[in-house]
Amino acid sequence: MKEISEKLREFNEEREWGQFHTPENLSKSISIEAGELLECFQWNNNYDSAAVCEELADVTMYCIMLADRINVDLKEEILKKIKVNSEKYPVSKSKGNSIKYSNFGD
Amino acid sequence: MKEISEKLREFNEEREWGQFHTPENLSKSISIEAGELLECFQWNNNYDSAAVCEELADVTMYCIMLADRINVDLKEEILKKIKVNSEKYPVSKSKGNSIKYSNFGD
Amino acid sequence: MKEISEKLREFNEEREWGQFHTPENLSKSISIEAGELLECFQWNNNYDSAAVCEELADVTMYCIMLADRINVDLKEEILKKIKVNSEKYPVSKSKGNSIKYSNFGD
Amino acid sequence: MKEISEKLREFNEEREWGQFHTPENLSKSISIEAGELLECFQWNNNYDSAAVCEELADVTMYCIMLADRINVDLKEEILKKIKVNSEKYPVSKSKGNSIKYSNFGD
Repeated sequence: MKEISEKLREFNEEREWGQFHTPENLSKSISIEAGELLECFQWNNNYDSAAVCEELADVTMYCIMLADRINVDLKEEILKKIKVNSEKYPVSKSKGNSIKYSNFGD
Repeated sequence: MKEISEKLREFNEEREWGQFHTPENLSKSISIEAGELLECFQWNNNYDSAAVCEELADVTMYCIMLADRINVDLKEEILKKIKVNSEKYPVSKSKGNSIKYSNFGD
Repeated sequence: MKEISEKLREFNEEREWGQFHTPENLSKSISIEAGELLECFQWNNNYDSAAVCEELADVTMYCIMLADRINVDLKEEILKKIKVNSEKYPVSKSKGNSIKYSNFGD
Repeated sequence: MKEISEKLREFNEEREWGQFHTPENLSKSISIEAGELLECFQWNNNYDSAAVCEELADVTMYCIMLADRINVDLKEEILKKIKVNSEKYPVSKSKGNSIKYSNFGD
């Protein structure tokens, strides 16, 4: 992740693109690219693997750039979130179903 | 990235969630979480840092899970894409502007 | 709205596209087109009016098609929602601010 | 559509919300609400009808507000777009398939 982050920073610095990469603009970009990824699955499941890879790379690149922009260690954030999710979705309640935690009965 | 990927796989296997994680459903999930991230910037730029981190982690987790699901090395894909972008956006044409490559005049 | 709805139904019937227009696929399409609309504002506010109009028409068309597909009177639903919002966001609490109702203090 | 448009304008004027409703912010809002609509179909097709209606109303309301904000007759735009699509997707090429026009062979 760190290696990619540095490569992206270098790429953007060469082009003086930092001025466009506000947290807000990067968040918009993530949504835009997520839409392009979803387009690979718009009408059916016979997706074009190369197109999916490319769009997935785009979304993830913007995620890494946003983390870099707001000085966040993305790996740490994900590990934290997995821990939170382990508590929100205990195996005993979540095994084999996709029920949202807010809909768990008591 | 590999470490996170394995942690996520373990988390999902314990819950038998693989059945829900088709490439299509993961792509939808990336769009959904991208929308939640964008909500942090809906009306202004005074964003809640903790909320942004959490939503950013969510988007990225689903990206890593999708790469894992379709057996793609996400790091490799991103490095490939940076190379493609270097050619699409040469420094000479892109320095200091945000013009899309398809709008470069000749 | 009804006139458009009928025109769209006719357009789709001629092409036998009803088979693709499940509620799920139409919802994906709304997200995809919303991303294309957002792309008009990706890096700045100097938007191309014609492009915005076209993408906005796309999003709205899919909304009308989804309402038609699940037999819902979209106008009624919107009027209902405005009423709900009037109660969630009373003028006394919301005038001049963009605070989410869940963040209203007591 | 005009009736809804006026009701929304009145609702927003009472709350002095026009200041937040820039074309960009409304476009973000459309993407955000489209994500919430998509969430109704995240893992399967057993959707909650009431939730779908509510989210669909939200997306459409923001579409109508954006059209109003940029002084566009949304109905006219949609009728124009249907005409464009009729030419892009002639019945002879599109009947019974979901192929994108850019992928039509010759």
